[in-house]
Amino acid sequence: MTKFISKRNLQFLIKEVFQTKTLTTYDYYSEHNEKMFDMVIDEAQKLAVKLMYPVLDEMDKKPPELVNGEVRVHAAVKKIMKEFGQGGWIASGFSKVHGGDQLPFTIKGVTSFIFAASNYSASAYPELTTGAAELITSFGSQDLIETYVPKMLDGKWQGTMALTEPAAGSSLSDIITTAFPTDKGYFKIKGVKTFISAGDHDGVENIIHLMLARIEGAPAGAKGISLFVVPKKRVDNNGHLVPNDITTVSIYHKLGYRGAPAAELSMGEKDDCRGWLVGQENKGLSHMFQMMNAARILVGLASCAIASAAYYAALDYTANRRQGRPIAQKDPSIDQIPIIEHADVKRMLLFQRSIVEGSLSLILQCCMYADLMKVTEGEEKEKYGLLLDLLTPVAKAFPSEFGILSTNTAIQCFGGYGYCEDFPVEQYLRDVRIHAIHEGTTGIQAMDLLGRKMVMQNGKAAFLFVDEVKQTIHTALEIPGLEFFATQLANAMKELEKVTGFLFTAFGEKGVDVYLSDATLFLEFYSRIVISWQWLIQGIASQKALFGKCSKKEKNFYQGKVFTMNYFFRYELSKAAALATRLMDKDNLTVEMKSEYFKD
Amino acid sequence: MTKFISKRNLQFLIKEVFQTKTLTTYDYYSEHNEKMFDMVIDEAQKLAVKLMYPVLDEMDKKPPELVNGEVRVHAAVKKIMKEFGQGGWIASGFSKVHGGDQLPFTIKGVTSFIFAASNYSASAYPELTTGAAELITSFGSQDLIETYVPKMLDGKWQGTMALTEPAAGSSLSDIITTAFPTDKGYFKIKGVKTFISAGDHDGVENIIHLMLARIEGAPAGAKGISLFVVPKKRVDNNGHLVPNDITTVSIYHKLGYRGAPAAELSMGEKDDCRGWLVGQENKGLSHMFQMMNAARILVGLASCAIASAAYYAALDYTANRRQGRPIAQKDPSIDQIPIIEHADVKRMLLFQRSIVEGSLSLILQCCMYADLMKVTEGEEKEKYGLLLDLLTPVAKAFPSEFGILSTNTAIQCFGGYGYCEDFPVEQYLRDVRIHAIHEGTTGIQAMDLLGRKMVMQNGKAAFLFVDEVKQTIHTALEIPGLEFFATQLANAMKELEKVTGFLFTAFGEKGVDVYLSDATLFLEFYSRIVISWQWLIQGIASQKALFGKCSKKEKNFYQGKVFTMNYFFRYELSKAAALATRLMDKDNLTVEMKSEYFKD
Repeated sequence: MTKFISKRNLQFLIKEVFQTKTLTTYDYYSEHNEKMFDMVIDEAQKLAVKLMYPVLDEMDKKPPELVNGEVRVHAAVKKIMKEFGQGGWIASGFSKVHGGDQLPFTIKGVTSFIFAASNYSASAYPELTTGAAELITSFGSQDLIETYVPKMLDGKWQGTMALTEPAAGSSLSDIITTAFPTDKGYFKIKGVKTFISAGDHDGVENIIHLMLARIEGAPAGAKGISLFVVPKKRVDNNGHLVPNDITTVSIYHKLGYRGAPAAELSMGEKDDCRGWLVGQENKGLSHMFQMMNAARILVGLASCAIASAAYYAALDYTANRRQGRPIAQKDPSIDQIPIIEHADVKRMLLFQRSIVEGSLSLILQCCMYADLMKVTEGEEKEKYGLLLDLLTPVAKAFPSEFGILSTNTAIQCFGGYGYCEDFPVEQYLRDVRIHAIHEGTTGIQAMDLLGRKMVMQNGKAAFLFVDEVKQTIHTALEIPGLEFFATQLANAMKELEKVTGFLFTAFGEKGVDVYLSDATLFLEFYSRIVISWQWLIQGIASQKALFGKCSKKEKNFYQGKVFTMNYFFRYELSKAAALATRLMDKDNLTVEMKSEYFKD
Repeated sequence: MTKFISKRNLQFLIKEVFQTKTLTTYDYYSEHNEKMFDMVIDEAQKLAVKLMYPVLDEMDKKPPELVNGEVRVHAAVKKIMKEFGQGGWIASGFSKVHGGDQLPFTIKGVTSFIFAASNYSASAYPELTTGAAELITSFGSQDLIETYVPKMLDGKWQGTMALTEPAAGSSLSDIITTAFPTDKGYFKIKGVKTFISAGDHDGVENIIHLMLARIEGAPAGAKGISLFVVPKKRVDNNGHLVPNDITTVSIYHKLGYRGAPAAELSMGEKDDCRGWLVGQENKGLSHMFQMMNAARILVGLASCAIASAAYYAALDYTANRRQGRPIAQKDPSIDQIPIIEHADVKRMLLFQRSIVEGSLSLILQCCMYADLMKVTEGEEKEKYGLLLDLLTPVAKAFPSEFGILSTNTAIQCFGGYGYCEDFPVEQYLRDVRIHAIHEGTTGIQAMDLLGRKMVMQNGKAAFLFVDEVKQTIHTALEIPGLEFFATQLANAMKELEKVTGFLFTAFGEKGVDVYLSDATLFLEFYSRIVISWQWLIQGIASQKALFGKCSKKEKNFYQGKVFTMNYFFRYELSKAAALATRLMDKDNLTVEMKSEYFKD
């Protein structure tokens, strides 16, 4: 069977690293236990193997088509939405009140990881529906909830996030889609939305857009944006679905992520597109951010899921492909060895593993914060919320940027075969490439981290993070074999303090433009430290296990963890120093560079 | 008109940096002059614009097909081969004796750059033919030369390099295709070759394979490999072309580089495939290396050509796409600004420009060494030969690895649009990805650099390189504005000395496996220094020009050069230090990591 994830690693993270079962001591999660978590994960894997992985290649090769104004998708989509609905996978994270299982985010994260690793495009349909339905339950009226949520959680209706417009992508505050008030409880919507994932398709009965628009006369900018439910088909007085005047103008032909359509939609061409306000007027952007923050974590998760699938493909190939001999061995008559025996190939595999397992660990850490935020109160709740806020841009951007490098390295492990469609790795590179772009580009994440999260509440979140890392270092220092790593991380934290100090001074002296000019570098610098912290956390669990009794097989697993941690510290954390050098350099060339200097 | 290269930059490199016209003082190149060089470059650009760029997208969308045993390629290929033949482009670098123009490698390099930037797949057909014909003229008998070379230079017959076999890719010494001697002046060939670029197609009359095979009974390994001409159709006694028992088994469906077929060929299924020995028996690998070294430079050139096309696409897009406002500007009612005004976008553009122009400069430097090697004698000739040998793996690997990152960054500049087929950048990423694989993967280049080139003749080449850099530093120190860069480069050279010293000690103490285990990191470390050197050379020419009289437009160009140099030193050379840290780390984890630690 093709391996795209390591179940052993998932168990390691859930049980040994994050001890997710501790969540079941809280009332909200008290009906769960560890056995149930295991069952959920097993079922997710079965579904992925049965339903999703088998159509990975086909959904890529036969992408959606726009035929007579409707988008036709692969037949598997209908089946997937149905099974995800009936199996409760779309609803699993919802409260019982809304028909869900109250599954912790952490376990829900694991299932999302498995689905995305098996077939990212296929997984996007139910995941988007979950996100859209959550938004309605959080901010929508009882009427909206009753009309839309059950059908969505059932997989009968698709949910979307309809934000982007042709002239408003990264600059969301510039959207111009307009909502005209009527006296009938709905608004009339006019405008164009673009790049809407699953924005139209024939795998479901209806499409429910969670759409940002500006109520006529609302203030300019972010303060005048509201959130609406705008269905493709609305329910008429007789309970029938009738068209709601949304036209699918076109779909994009994309590099990857080809199994799901990205549609351009035009609303109100016949002045008959109706939308219903969700939450408060002019608060749409802040409402949407609930979905967007979860979506950002999901993007990071999907990136490392795709990188995971590519890594296991490369691991399998390198263990079986024979090429070359040990360097010191000159005799050409002896057999060639599996390429996994070459140090450079091991380096490439360790790189991939360090990215995949380091990123996944961070994302499950974020999920744990989300779970703890949900079930705790007061200062504790605030703490987890702040940590989650702080780490969200890292959890989004690091896996998506390094996921590109990781899948690219998987191709390199295959040599020429990796460049061919006969092996899946070229598709993984194409698929993963979207993630550094959608749900806020890496540049946007960087501005969010340095411009907002690092400074919010006078740096409270940043200080809380320092405490978390210090605790990990403290624990590690007491475990034989980890001193080097604890010390390296402590040094990196000192460097972080210096860098942020330097940047805050620059902010004061030179202003915000200079302060944020290398935000993307800061994001990478910070991410390398964050992922090292996650590796040290994993190293602690692994060393502890190695000191206990364990089988040969288990020993190999934990040794692999320790080597991968070692790899990350020596090859990847070491690069943080170079970024720090640049970040503390007073030359502001990217600010001073003039656009005309690019001309010739 | 779509811009894919900067002619201004080519003029800068040829005239101001490398002063290519000095070559015309040597007898071999004496019939040329600078005006003729200009004309050749102009004509190349016209051809690229007229013939190649217009089919860039189409050749990608309609890749070759194998129909009834023959490969059908886009109709443009026939036209291109014809015009390249008739226009003398395939032959331009050949000596007059063989029907060429004796064009310097440097100018030939510029034309190859232009062609590859306009449409890499299309350019591969004539370039491969040039390389194969060169090999015949260098080592083939007069008879072989007369039979094959004129038709190849005319564009009527395609040339190929037929090296790779299913079980012998990176490990070339393991090829098993066999040549059975006959008493009729030819050998009978039996075997399978794979990934043969332009290995079969209907755009020409005939395909001429320069093929490695083992003469029956030859020693195992590299010492038993010979070089043959093996045509698809051979000339019978009546001068007619008859089939030579080569079957096209399949063609690969590839991620990119889709305009040219990569074929799997089977020779001698009917025991009637004839091959003719080129050069000496069992010297095939060393003969082939002449072609391979040139091919490696060409791969580097093509990588930076594709990155150039992607960069100019991104530059154009960012200058026109409006999104966001200056960070300090809070008023949402003012117009959005072109994204090129954002510091992070300028950083991404500077990164691309620094890679494209830095790599191109290095490659033209290598071409100049090749030219000087050709026209000088004795110690001077040896010096240029050694420098060329040393820098070839850098000129191949750096542009191909950083070309991936550069085109990837071009996509990022486009945001979501970059992920769509409506813009060319996604194709550029797919096209450029092959270059880190073919003609020797990056890992192979790294072993070549550290395992062979750095140590050959007791490090003579490495020391010659140090002298070259010292000279540049010396010159730079006398020019105002360059002191910082000269000093940084001098410091990096000291670091290089430390790193190589450390590695040589490790070689002695721990053996070759440890010595070469991080060869790929060494290659990157060395490359960052080499490219900084090329940027300093460009900085010298630019500062000199800025001190003279120049128009506003010219000033912008030179200022852009200086800013890009500054970018490379501060953002990219700074990363060499982190690589040095790892290279001088005594932990040998990639050697010690066991393959079973990857299992779970």
